[in-house]
Amino acid sequence: MAAELTLSQLTEKHRPTLDQALAAIRSRAYWSPHPEHPKAYGETAPAEGLAAFEAVRGTRFDLDQPGTDGWTGGEVSPYGPELGVEYPHADADVLLPAMKAGIAAWRDAGPETRALVSISARTHEFAHAVMHTSGQAFMMAFQAGGPHAQDRGLEAVAYAYEEQTRVPGQADWSKPQGKRDPLELGKTFTAVPRGIALVIGCNTFPTWNGYPGLFASLATGNAVLVKPHPRAVLPLALTVKVAREVLAEAGFDPNLVALAVERPGEGIAKTLAVRPEIKLIDYTGSTEFGDWLEANARQAQVYTEKAGVNTVVVDSTSDYKGMLSNLAFSLSLYSGQMCTTPQNLLIPREGIETDAGHKSYDEVVADLAASVGGLLGDDARANALLGALVNPDVKARLEAAAGLGEVALASREVANPEFPDAVVRTPVIVKLDAGKQDPEAAYLSECFGPVSFAVAVDSTADALELLRRTVREKGAMTVGAYTTSADTERAIEEVCLEESAQLSLNLTGGVYVNQTAAFSDFHGSGGNPAANAALCDGAFVSNRFRVVEVRRQA
Amino acid sequence: MAAELTLSQLTEKHRPTLDQALAAIRSRAYWSPHPEHPKAYGETAPAEGLAAFEAVRGTRFDLDQPGTDGWTGGEVSPYGPELGVEYPHADADVLLPAMKAGIAAWRDAGPETRALVSISARTHEFAHAVMHTSGQAFMMAFQAGGPHAQDRGLEAVAYAYEEQTRVPGQADWSKPQGKRDPLELGKTFTAVPRGIALVIGCNTFPTWNGYPGLFASLATGNAVLVKPHPRAVLPLALTVKVAREVLAEAGFDPNLVALAVERPGEGIAKTLAVRPEIKLIDYTGSTEFGDWLEANARQAQVYTEKAGVNTVVVDSTSDYKGMLSNLAFSLSLYSGQMCTTPQNLLIPREGIETDAGHKSYDEVVADLAASVGGLLGDDARANALLGALVNPDVKARLEAAAGLGEVALASREVANPEFPDAVVRTPVIVKLDAGKQDPEAAYLSECFGPVSFAVAVDSTADALELLRRTVREKGAMTVGAYTTSADTERAIEEVCLEESAQLSLNLTGGVYVNQTAAFSDFHGSGGNPAANAALCDGAFVSNRFRVVEVRRQA
Repeated sequence: MAAELTLSQLTEKHRPTLDQALAAIRSRAYWSPHPEHPKAYGETAPAEGLAAFEAVRGTRFDLDQPGTDGWTGGEVSPYGPELGVEYPHADADVLLPAMKAGIAAWRDAGPETRALVSISARTHEFAHAVMHTSGQAFMMAFQAGGPHAQDRGLEAVAYAYEEQTRVPGQADWSKPQGKRDPLELGKTFTAVPRGIALVIGCNTFPTWNGYPGLFASLATGNAVLVKPHPRAVLPLALTVKVAREVLAEAGFDPNLVALAVERPGEGIAKTLAVRPEIKLIDYTGSTEFGDWLEANARQAQVYTEKAGVNTVVVDSTSDYKGMLSNLAFSLSLYSGQMCTTPQNLLIPREGIETDAGHKSYDEVVADLAASVGGLLGDDARANALLGALVNPDVKARLEAAAGLGEVALASREVANPEFPDAVVRTPVIVKLDAGKQDPEAAYLSECFGPVSFAVAVDSTADALELLRRTVREKGAMTVGAYTTSADTERAIEEVCLEESAQLSLNLTGGVYVNQTAAFSDFHGSGGNPAANAALCDGAFVSNRFRVVEVRRQA
Repeated sequence: MAAELTLSQLTEKHRPTLDQALAAIRSRAYWSPHPEHPKAYGETAPAEGLAAFEAVRGTRFDLDQPGTDGWTGGEVSPYGPELGVEYPHADADVLLPAMKAGIAAWRDAGPETRALVSISARTHEFAHAVMHTSGQAFMMAFQAGGPHAQDRGLEAVAYAYEEQTRVPGQADWSKPQGKRDPLELGKTFTAVPRGIALVIGCNTFPTWNGYPGLFASLATGNAVLVKPHPRAVLPLALTVKVAREVLAEAGFDPNLVALAVERPGEGIAKTLAVRPEIKLIDYTGSTEFGDWLEANARQAQVYTEKAGVNTVVVDSTSDYKGMLSNLAFSLSLYSGQMCTTPQNLLIPREGIETDAGHKSYDEVVADLAASVGGLLGDDARANALLGALVNPDVKARLEAAAGLGEVALASREVANPEFPDAVVRTPVIVKLDAGKQDPEAAYLSECFGPVSFAVAVDSTADALELLRRTVREKGAMTVGAYTTSADTERAIEEVCLEESAQLSLNLTGGVYVNQTAAFSDFHGSGGNPAANAALCDGAFVSNRFRVVEVRRQA
C-alpha cells in the first residue's frame, strides 16, 4: 500500500518530465527542465546554497554505509581554502555484498519505477561544491555542475527507460500448424541488471561527467558505487547522499548507491575496477588509465572518455569578427580545461578570405590574440570566465607551452580579490608550423589547459589531412571549422563522418564548440580514440542490462 | 534517376516486410515471412535446389573479388561425399582496402535503403549446402539453414534500422534567451559505420549463426568480410554471392561483402581478427577462440557465442509422458549438436512427483531412455531427426562419455541407406551423481554432441544451486525446468534472472527448449559466459555504428 502510494506520487510528479525527455531525445530540439539561471531557484537560493556548502565544511560526511572502516578526505579548493570534509572509507568486502542485497527488489520494480525514482534523485545545491573542487567560476559551476549535469543524467534515464521498454513485459505467441492446433506459449521478458556499476569521477566535471553513467546504470537496475576523484569528492558525495535518501523514501535499499573515497595514494579505482562484482564502469580521465581499464577490467562493460586533441579548421569566413569572438570565448571558458576546448587552430600559411578582406596567417593569429585579450582585459570578467586552474599539472603545462614556439598571446596572471590563493591564468596562444615542428612533441599531444596552438598549414587540404590524422590517432571530442566554400564544407564533413568526430560549422554567435546541450547534442561520438561511448545514445545504455525471457506452455 | 528507380522498386517490394518485422520485434508475437515447408517454395523447388547444389559441386566458385591470389577448398560432407568446390583465396592487403572503397556511398544511402537492400539479399537454395556441411538432416537443414536463418537475418536488419532511426536526420534547435533572440542551430545526424566487419562462421549452423552479425553489420553501413568454417564454406559462399549480386544491382559496390576462405591449417581468422581495418567481429564457436578474440581483437567490437552447459531441472510434472517425449526430442534433434541442446538433467535422487505417481530417479532416467529409444527406434525416422555427426571430435566425445558413469541409454549406430559413409549415432544418456563425481571432469564441462548426463542431486534446492553455479561459471544458452510447484517455479526463475539465463518452463508439447523463434525469442542472453550478446536486441546493433552530428549556425 505504501509502495503503491509512492509509485503513484512518483508518477504524478515525474512522469511528465520523463515523457518530455523521451520526446526530446527523439526530436533533438531544445529542451531542459532545469533552469540555468541561479535566480530561477528563488531569491534566497544562492545564499542558501553557500550556507549549505559552508555548513558541510570541516565536518564528517556520514552516509551510514555498511563497511565503513575509517574516514578520509583532504580536498583543497583550486581557489585556496581547504574543504576539511571527511568521508567514509569503505571496506569493499563488506560494502559490495551489501550493495547487492537490494538489487533483486530494484530489478523487480521495473523500468518505469526505476526511471521515476532516478529522476527524483536530483538536487540543486552543487554550485559551491563544484566551484571549490573543479576551480570553475561560480556561474559555470552552477550551470554545468547543476542543471546541465542534471540534464545529462535525465537524458540517460530517458534512454535507459526507452531501451528497457523496447521489449514488452509479456507476449502471447501462437504459431500456426496447418490443420493442427497452433503451438502456443506465454512469454515474459524482464530487464535484468548486470550487477554493481562503478563510476570513476573526474576532477573538472565531477557531476556533469559522472551523472550519465550513474543514472544509466541505476535506471537499468544496477547498484552504483561512486568513486570520486580525490580532489573532487564533495559534489558526488552530495549526490550519493541524496540518491540514498530518495531510494530509502521510495522503499528501496539505500545501499543501491554508495560512495568509495580513497586514502591518499591508495589507488582504489584500480582494485575496485577488477572486482568480480563490478560489471559496469564509467570513467572520465586520462587516456593511460582509460586504456588500462579497457584492457584489464575484462569482467565489466567499460565506458571511457579519455584525452583527445580538438581541432578547428580555419579556411574562410563571412563573419571575421564573429569568428574571432566566438573562438576567443571557446579558448577562455574555464581556462581551456574542458575536454571539448579547441587545442589546434589550423590556419593556411597563405592566409584566409574573410568579409573583412584577405587576412594573412599572422593577422588571423594576432587578431585572435587581441580578441582573447579584449575578452579577458577586465579582471572581474576574466575571473568569471576563467575560473581557477584545477591543479598544478595544468599550470606546469601552461608554463611549458610557451617554449614550444613563438608566443602570439602570453598568459597573464589574474588576481582574484575574493580568493587570493586562486591560480587564475589567461590562455596562451603559441604559433607553430605544421611542416617544421615534430607533431608528436607539440600539437599532436593533448595539452590540457589554457593552451592553444595556431598551426600554420600549407593549405586547407593539408589542414583536412592533419585533421584526419589527429582524430584517427589522437581522438577528438569536438571539431570546429570555418569556411564559406560549399566544397570545403563537404570535405570537412566527410572527414568527420569517416573518422567519427562531432563537427560544429561556422559558429560566430552565442553557441560555442565546447558546449553540448543534453537531449540534442551528442557529447563525443564513441567512434574515435577520445571516447568509446557518446553521451547519450542507445549504445550507452543497451548493454547495462540484459533481457531474460521465460517461456511457459500456454 | 536509376538509383531512385531502384529505391522505389525496393521500397515497393520490401518496405512492408520491414514494417512487419519492426512490429514483430515490438510485440514479440509469432511472425515469419519465410515459410518453413519446402513445398511452400513450389513443387519443383526441392528438385531445383538439389540440382543447383549438384551443379556447384566440383567447380570453382568464382566471386570476382579483388585480391584473389589462389584457390582453396576441401569440404567433405558429414554424409560422406567430397564437395570438391574451390573458393577464392584472398590477399587481405588487396581485398580489405577494396572493401573500404564502397563504404562512403553505402553510408550515404541511409538506413532505409540499406535495410531494403539487405532484405533483398535473401535466397532459398541453402538446404543441401547446409545439409552437406553441417550434417543436419534435410528438413532441419532446409528450415534452420534457410527460412529460420533468414528470419534471424531480417530480425537483425529490423533492429539495425530501428536503432539508426532513433535519431532524426536533422533537427532545428532554438534555445530561448529571455529578451534576446534565441540561439539557433541547424543540426544533422548521420549514422556512420565502424568500418569492415568480420563474420567468423561455425561448422554446425553456418547461416543461422552467421546471418545476424552479417546483416546487422551490413545494414548499419559496414562492409562485411565472411570467413566461413573450413568445413562449412558453401552456404556462406552462396550467401556472399547473392549479396554481391544484390548490392551491384542496387548500384552499390559489390565488394561491400566478400568471402575469405583459408588454406588448410592457415588459421586466417586469427590474423584477420586483429587487422586494424576490422572493427566488428561476430563469432560462433569454441570458448577458447572466443576468449582469445575478446582479449586480442581490441580494435574491434567483438560479439561471441561460445560453449555453455545447458541444464534442465526436473522437479515434478503434471504431464510425465509429455515431459519425457519433449525431452527425448530435444536430446535427439541433430544429434544434440545444437548450442541449445540440454546436457545436464538434474533429478532429485529421491525421485519426483508426477501425474503418473511418484517416480524414482532410476525410473525417470529409464523412462527417458525408453522414450529416446522409442523416438529413434525406426531408422528412417532416426536419420531424419539425427542427421550425421558433424566431425570426428563429436564421435570421439560420444564414445568417451560412456566411460564417465553408468550408461542408461547406449548410443546406437544408425545406417543411412542413401549415404553409407554418414556417421549417424543416437544419443547416450549417462547417470552421474552430483555428490560423487568431480563435476569439472564430468558434467560441468561442455560435452558438445549427443551426450546427456542424468545427474542425481540431493533435492530441488540442490539442483538450483548447481544450476546457478553452472550458469555463472560455464554459461548456458538455455535452461529448462519442470515443476508443478509455484514456489519452485519462482525460485528457478529467480536463479535465471540473477544469472541471466533464458528459461523454458514445463515444455511438454511441440516447442522444444533448443529452439528459439526469431522476432519473439532471444537466443542467448548475453549476460552469462556462453555468449556476450543475444540474438537479437538493441545491444546487438547499437555499437555497430556511431552517430555524427554536424551543427551549423542557423
